[in-house]
Amino acid sequence: MGTTLQSASDRYGQLVTHLHLQADLAAALHLLQWDQETYMPAGVAGSRARQIGTLAAALHERRTSPRFLDLVDELAGRQTDLESWQAVDVRETKWRADRQRALESDLVRERSQLHAEARGRWVEAREADDFELLRPYLKRIVEMEQRVARCIDASRDPYEVLLESYEPGMTVKALEDCFERLRTDLQGLVGALPAAGEDGATPTVLQGDFPLDSQRSFNTQVARAIGFDFNKGRLDVAVHPFTMSIGDDVRLTTRYDQTDLRYSLYSTIHEAGHGLYEQGLDPEAHGLPRGTACSLGVHESQSRLWENLVGRSTGFWEYFLPLAKTTFAPLQAASLKAVVHAANETRRSFIRTEADELTYNLHIILRFDLERALIAGQLAVADLPEAWAAHMRQHLGIVPPSNRDGVLQDVHWASGAIGYFPTYTLGNVYAAELATAAEHDIGSFHDLMVRGEFIELLRWLRTHVHRLGQTYRGHALVAAALGREPGPHALVDHLERKNRMMKEL
Amino acid sequence: MGTTLQSASDRYGQLVTHLHLQADLAAALHLLQWDQETYMPAGVAGSRARQIGTLAAALHERRTSPRFLDLVDELAGRQTDLESWQAVDVRETKWRADRQRALESDLVRERSQLHAEARGRWVEAREADDFELLRPYLKRIVEMEQRVARCIDASRDPYEVLLESYEPGMTVKALEDCFERLRTDLQGLVGALPAAGEDGATPTVLQGDFPLDSQRSFNTQVARAIGFDFNKGRLDVAVHPFTMSIGDDVRLTTRYDQTDLRYSLYSTIHEAGHGLYEQGLDPEAHGLPRGTACSLGVHESQSRLWENLVGRSTGFWEYFLPLAKTTFAPLQAASLKAVVHAANETRRSFIRTEADELTYNLHIILRFDLERALIAGQLAVADLPEAWAAHMRQHLGIVPPSNRDGVLQDVHWASGAIGYFPTYTLGNVYAAELATAAEHDIGSFHDLMVRGEFIELLRWLRTHVHRLGQTYRGHALVAAALGREPGPHALVDHLERKNRMMKEL
Repeated sequence: MGTTLQSASDRYGQLVTHLHLQADLAAALHLLQWDQETYMPAGVAGSRARQIGTLAAALHERRTSPRFLDLVDELAGRQTDLESWQAVDVRETKWRADRQRALESDLVRERSQLHAEARGRWVEAREADDFELLRPYLKRIVEMEQRVARCIDASRDPYEVLLESYEPGMTVKALEDCFERLRTDLQGLVGALPAAGEDGATPTVLQGDFPLDSQRSFNTQVARAIGFDFNKGRLDVAVHPFTMSIGDDVRLTTRYDQTDLRYSLYSTIHEAGHGLYEQGLDPEAHGLPRGTACSLGVHESQSRLWENLVGRSTGFWEYFLPLAKTTFAPLQAASLKAVVHAANETRRSFIRTEADELTYNLHIILRFDLERALIAGQLAVADLPEAWAAHMRQHLGIVPPSNRDGVLQDVHWASGAIGYFPTYTLGNVYAAELATAAEHDIGSFHDLMVRGEFIELLRWLRTHVHRLGQTYRGHALVAAALGREPGPHALVDHLERKNRMMKEL
Repeated sequence: MGTTLQSASDRYGQLVTHLHLQADLAAALHLLQWDQETYMPAGVAGSRARQIGTLAAALHERRTSPRFLDLVDELAGRQTDLESWQAVDVRETKWRADRQRALESDLVRERSQLHAEARGRWVEAREADDFELLRPYLKRIVEMEQRVARCIDASRDPYEVLLESYEPGMTVKALEDCFERLRTDLQGLVGALPAAGEDGATPTVLQGDFPLDSQRSFNTQVARAIGFDFNKGRLDVAVHPFTMSIGDDVRLTTRYDQTDLRYSLYSTIHEAGHGLYEQGLDPEAHGLPRGTACSLGVHESQSRLWENLVGRSTGFWEYFLPLAKTTFAPLQAASLKAVVHAANETRRSFIRTEADELTYNLHIILRFDLERALIAGQLAVADLPEAWAAHMRQHLGIVPPSNRDGVLQDVHWASGAIGYFPTYTLGNVYAAELATAAEHDIGSFHDLMVRGEFIELLRWLRTHVHRLGQTYRGHALVAAALGREPGPHALVDHLERKNRMMKEL
């Protein structure tokens, strides 16, 4: 028996066919998930969970089929015969395939069962404000993630191995340096802030009666103005806002509070930032690593850049306040200063998702410290609530009155996501760096925004971030856009400037 | 090597696992299709078509995998070892599997490509009112369906083989007898009707200004009152109303005309009739033949029964007119008589989907005659427009002014659906028969409806139709419910009664 060796390019073509098929299955899975959070009637949750499980298993089966893995291995050994852009797809596919096959299917099943159970228990524990309900599950999750890290690469820091699931190529050392610097530099700014509820609760100008239909219309116009393409996307309502791509169909969600415009507006801009990234990926490379977002940190940099550096700026409001005034009665007499002030209100508070731009990163650094200690075996799960309170006291100067407002507030750990939190602050760091570089190339954001020329910024991001997909890993991608190593200084500078501006308003 | 023979019951359990997995894939496919018609943004039609193709292929692969087919064959040979309810699932699965494997995968691919092309061409042909654009594709479709019928069973009437795709167990002979009788009996009633546009176009009381939000609210209340469970279902908007089940999640659609309440109301009741059937299937047998609707004819009997025998009745309006009066300003002074008259307006007209209850069946019989002649080779595709006009003149006494109002009006043939049309009239026939039997058991519909006790009828249908799934084939299912063979008399009686009532109103 003889086999004719096919050209590397032909074999690459076969890889593309596999990846396209996997992308179509992933699209169906994503639609099941999107619908679950938006339009699915409550009574069918059980069958939907089973359908999602079946699709996920079918996708996993394709991604770990011997035929697919053999093809990936063969191409990885023939990278010099490939074009450099083909080699990117092979390199990233091989990296993910190796991580997937390091985990035996029994372990994968056991892990996802554990996550499903623990998430259910987390809901109960949070409702009852009883950490003990969750504790045994969290202990098993920590042990499971330690085991997962060992299976993937027993020779490396297990936390770094887990971190790479969300931020490939990132090192613990680089994160530590960056976060330590941030912690030091932000400490002074944060210490001077009022704690939540400390000062008289005068409502801001963005609080009042904002009818939902008007909010929907305003948010849609904002998203369209910054470049979101509604011909290939939607904006719907979900309890926990998220963005989901169903192939090239990018779906944003937000949630509405009739008494506070900020909630729906900033979650819309945040999600639109994610959506613009997805819509800016190379359509020719759809379903391939080159046409897939780079990492969670880079994704978050896009949402944060639009939300915080654009949406909360004076220039943004100079442009949008006239429309806001005609849309919302309570804003008819509002001054630009009052609106910008309301958009940038800062407080030391307990809940990460409600934290402002300045204090947010301290919430993340706390979680980074604790989860590293958990994985390293230096902190027992039973001691988490106390460690949480101690960190909050030390870095934010406040202590949560309950575990519900403390260690039980996030679903991440109960979902097995350890190593995920740091990507949020990494996003803020990258966002500030990218904004600085973009401003250098295209000129003052303020001047562009006042004229409504958001598309200039979008074009820059398309070129330097979106179109590149996974051509580089996250850190290297940002470094290439900057022409130097990224660091926390731009974020600190931005937050200091904003702090000064707030005092002057 | 020895194999231990597993018990028939164990093997049946494995069949159930296969069928559940196929049902989950089908649910994902249905959600892709439902979303395509409701919420999908226009710009992603291309990628959605590809995702649907991938899922359909994945499902076909499971349904024709050697492991699955071997299991089905083995169980079909061991039916005596099975419980009778298990044997139903095996019998129907085997019947479908045999039909699927009769078609080679090249033929399946060629056929679905042809359908996709022909549907596109049909849109163009209809817009341009040019039959010639569609003619060559229709010719290929007729040849393809002849070939398909030969592959499945070359020894039988090819039209009957195709018909069975939609109505398993139905014979051409039975249909011919039934339809011939209907044609004769309806001829007299229809001849006396005005042709569309003939009489002065006085708007009925159900025409006027009916705001969409009010229509939505009214329709939802009607659907809920007749028993539709919104905890496991939805009502949305689609250009061509349809019902789609995503597992046990049943989704109705309708479309709104602000100037005419009838369109959205009767399409909602029609689709709710389909939805009630789906929601009434045995949840314990979900994904199995016993938990799957019996046939298209039986499905249509449920939609028609609720739409025509309930929704257009005097009793229905006695109950709902008070709510309609508080919901819609134009109805505040409307009399019951005027509303019932408007709900039952009859006209001889060109378009099937706009035809009333009485003339509708003649539109179907025309299509049944023509498609049988096409498959039998007695009518050339090129002669279709002329044959269509001749049939219309003979049976409805009117001739369509264009092919757009004639042979080009329906997408069915261009989608390869030959043998589908008769199930519509079969639905009307079964609906009238089931209504008569139900009325015998539960008492006068009129009395129940006046009191809003629609659930009594629903309970009867659950017992005699919904819960049985595919335990019997369509004709046998209806016969079992009636205790005798079904026939067209009940439908003719119903239409005659309605005709007399309309004259008296």
